[in-house]
Amino acid sequence: MAAPPFTVRSESVCHGGRVGFYTHQSAALGLEARFAVFMPPNAAANAPVPVVYVLAGLTCTEETFFIKAHALQEAARLGVALVATDTSPRGAGIEGEDTDWDFGTGAGFYLDATIAPWSSHYRMGRYITQELPALVEAHFALDGTRRGIMGHSMGGHGALVHGLRAPQVWKSVSAFAPIVHPTAVPWGQKAFANYLGPDKQAWRAYDAVCLLQDGYRHPNPILVDQGLADQFLERELQPWHLRDAAHKAQQPLTLREHAGYDHSYWFVQSFAAEHIRHHARLLTGGGA
Amino acid sequence: MAAPPFTVRSESVCHGGRVGFYTHQSAALGLEARFAVFMPPNAAANAPVPVVYVLAGLTCTEETFFIKAHALQEAARLGVALVATDTSPRGAGIEGEDTDWDFGTGAGFYLDATIAPWSSHYRMGRYITQELPALVEAHFALDGTRRGIMGHSMGGHGALVHGLRAPQVWKSVSAFAPIVHPTAVPWGQKAFANYLGPDKQAWRAYDAVCLLQDGYRHPNPILVDQGLADQFLERELQPWHLRDAAHKAQQPLTLREHAGYDHSYWFVQSFAAEHIRHHARLLTGGGA
Repeated sequence: MAAPPFTVRSESVCHGGRVGFYTHQSAALGLEARFAVFMPPNAAANAPVPVVYVLAGLTCTEETFFIKAHALQEAARLGVALVATDTSPRGAGIEGEDTDWDFGTGAGFYLDATIAPWSSHYRMGRYITQELPALVEAHFALDGTRRGIMGHSMGGHGALVHGLRAPQVWKSVSAFAPIVHPTAVPWGQKAFANYLGPDKQAWRAYDAVCLLQDGYRHPNPILVDQGLADQFLERELQPWHLRDAAHKAQQPLTLREHAGYDHSYWFVQSFAAEHIRHHARLLTGGGA
Repeated sequence: MAAPPFTVRSESVCHGGRVGFYTHQSAALGLEARFAVFMPPNAAANAPVPVVYVLAGLTCTEETFFIKAHALQEAARLGVALVATDTSPRGAGIEGEDTDWDFGTGAGFYLDATIAPWSSHYRMGRYITQELPALVEAHFALDGTRRGIMGHSMGGHGALVHGLRAPQVWKSVSAFAPIVHPTAVPWGQKAFANYLGPDKQAWRAYDAVCLLQDGYRHPNPILVDQGLADQFLERELQPWHLRDAAHKAQQPLTLREHAGYDHSYWFVQSFAAEHIRHHARLLTGGGA
């Protein structure tokens, strides 16, 4: 039997399931890439489980959500697998990629760059929608017909955008403190101008609010949690744009605003179990 | 009103309570020290809550248990506060303190060193049993008459030792993968020879198995979880010594061995909620 096309960095039993960290050579990125998988206790080759892809935020890695979001216990209980990706290519060697914390390394924005030099490696869009699912669903007991997507901050942006663009692929969508309207805020404008170039029409394909304005819909309710003491609320997140766009589009959305909570994983962990239940409900018809 | 004798590094709402990270000038250590406090939602000046002190293992800090053990949700639910300490003094400037990962910085072993040069700063024993409780219980809504102690690895050693030495102070005790018999294993022998000198009689005061042999008892059952795939099981942890000593001493002990689990916080987080329930039950008479 051929060896799987990835290397095991570590695997540990956790909540009766298994959490593992892996490395592989990514064709989409043209570089070595890291990912993590949590398999619940009930997974077996003849009983593949639903899977939720988790996307982290600026400066984070494939480890962050698994370590800090405290989602594994509920995923184990409900029989849901989790797959985590890194937030950008690493080591592309592009001048300037390590200069800023909100652009380049750690800030791939889950899109496919079209402008040189970024277009040669910064292709996290196809990586998380095509290459990574194909890889893990071929080698772990995952049911690719029951896929969800969730994320935090920049990862919340990724979850909303890809969920809206391909609702037949991502059957459940949720986000913590997402960047909902990147074309209108500094983080997104900086990233999109570099990755996608000056034509702002091209930016709309990676902006959840614009996608809703342009007719994209998800048949299932989208769950979003937002802390009202979030230090990025006014400048970068502006969740009211999502609320308004969803309302106009008649897109089912549960946007919950929480007094006192900030942008950190102390916030994320406080509601992570509810997000896992949201996905389990939509992916298994049970859960809750 | 006088300012509290510590500096707030950060505070965040978490599970309806508040997690905070603080710095103060420690008299016991003669250095600046860091600690962390989680206050559950129901804490108030006129309703102080029980408090469990958590001790981390080699190389860790006051952040590790709070971030990785996933204990805050259950602590919030049961109305228990958590206080976390660092694992050693930092920046004592003693030659050799940063040479090894299992001795010196990050490896204070929760004892009071008696041998120069370590005796001038390495006094984590009095720090966690006296200075830190006095500080936090004066400035947070904590009920010092309802104190528990728990820890992981070297921190499990600290919890067992201090719990047995002062059961009237630490009314509930638990440990994950503790060093139960440091005088008999390499980690402990290296630390004790340096911190306490060659007289092995003096070592017994910081060895849970020796304390049981020497007549120390805790009136309440002690909870210990141990993974059987722990990479340090045979060489450093040897939980059978604790089981035998507790049996001979008629010390109530629940020692649970878990197939497949290793030494990591993936193991700790799998059973952390049960430990919080153990402490809540003993400290509040309710819980569970």
